[in-house]
Amino acid sequence: MSGRFITLEGGEGVGKSTQLRRVADALARRGIDVVVTREPGGSPGAEAIRALLLTGAADRWSARAEALLFAAARADHVERTIRPAIASGRWVLCDRFVDSSRAYQATGSALGDDDVMALHRVGSAGLLPDRTLVLALDADEALARAGDRDSAGSDRIGGRAADYHDHVARAFHRIAAAEPERVRLVDGSGPADSVTDRLVDALADLLP
Amino acid sequence: MSGRFITLEGGEGVGKSTQLRRVADALARRGIDVVVTREPGGSPGAEAIRALLLTGAADRWSARAEALLFAAARADHVERTIRPAIASGRWVLCDRFVDSSRAYQATGSALGDDDVMALHRVGSAGLLPDRTLVLALDADEALARAGDRDSAGSDRIGGRAADYHDHVARAFHRIAAAEPERVRLVDGSGPADSVTDRLVDALADLLP
Repeated sequence: MSGRFITLEGGEGVGKSTQLRRVADALARRGIDVVVTREPGGSPGAEAIRALLLTGAADRWSARAEALLFAAARADHVERTIRPAIASGRWVLCDRFVDSSRAYQATGSALGDDDVMALHRVGSAGLLPDRTLVLALDADEALARAGDRDSAGSDRIGGRAADYHDHVARAFHRIAAAEPERVRLVDGSGPADSVTDRLVDALADLLP
Repeated sequence: MSGRFITLEGGEGVGKSTQLRRVADALARRGIDVVVTREPGGSPGAEAIRALLLTGAADRWSARAEALLFAAARADHVERTIRPAIASGRWVLCDRFVDSSRAYQATGSALGDDDVMALHRVGSAGLLPDRTLVLALDADEALARAGDRDSAGSDRIGGRAADYHDHVARAFHRIAAAEPERVRLVDGSGPADSVTDRLVDALADLLP
């Protein structure tokens, strides 16, 4: 039986990394064989591209070069890690995927959503997740949480201005509104185990 | 006055690198301010991507990831090197450009010419050269010349099989036939200075 492809999305500081591990544990307790991965990266080639994307000066890459590099990393990740895992019946739980490109790269650049999707079609045959969970948090709360982390703001993208991150949050809301069956907004506030419960509930119809 | 953008194309061993320098010298003697550059590379970001493309095992990248990496390097090269030089009135002479992607990446892979051009539109607004010179050589002669070079076959792409390179040569001929105004096939056989004369002749209508 073919596995499932689940992605977790959201802006900086919404608690994605913590929740990804917690949801993986919850699925494993239900007997599901889970692969946890992340973007950019998730395969040796994609990790090499990740190093180009997340290091260097803020203006190291133009928006267009950056979009192509993300799509290249994604193509490698899909072909070498995600598709083989799904084909062998495992569930792939991925921290960020093409919706992050749509939300981040199409924010404040000359790039449109159709450009990002064109790259995704050429690179990854347009693969979309079975379910995308968008962790949603009040913008002030997200920024406060991000500020608490040692690593926050330390890479090329996390370090951008607050109104950029506000635009990104709104872009995720638009994607969720446009694709309600695939994409679910999940309230990220409150205790971590309540958030995990809500995330797992949003996968209920896919569970065996 | 805006400068010109000239590219030199052709398979392995046709004498491109030598002729690029010779044509640059011939143009400089006519008082033209020439910038010589090459792909993949030609700007700091693109050179970093070049290192990913030309090192590692032959199967390091899938055809799709490779096409995206070439397009990313090209986007950076166009934005940071080529467009500024042309805008300042200089002539840019470039060793390989998008026609190499069309000839190489669409050969023996699942990728079509429309895919390569879609990436070029997103990455570089579809920039095409004012003139593309394709150095054409009989396949046996080209392979013999390539075999004479120490570096031949030493990178991921030069090392591919002879029939791959034959397909590439035919792809360049198809591009030249489809776009006769932009793309000129130039006979690369005989003494180097005769070849240079033929290349400069193929630029005659663009010269000041």
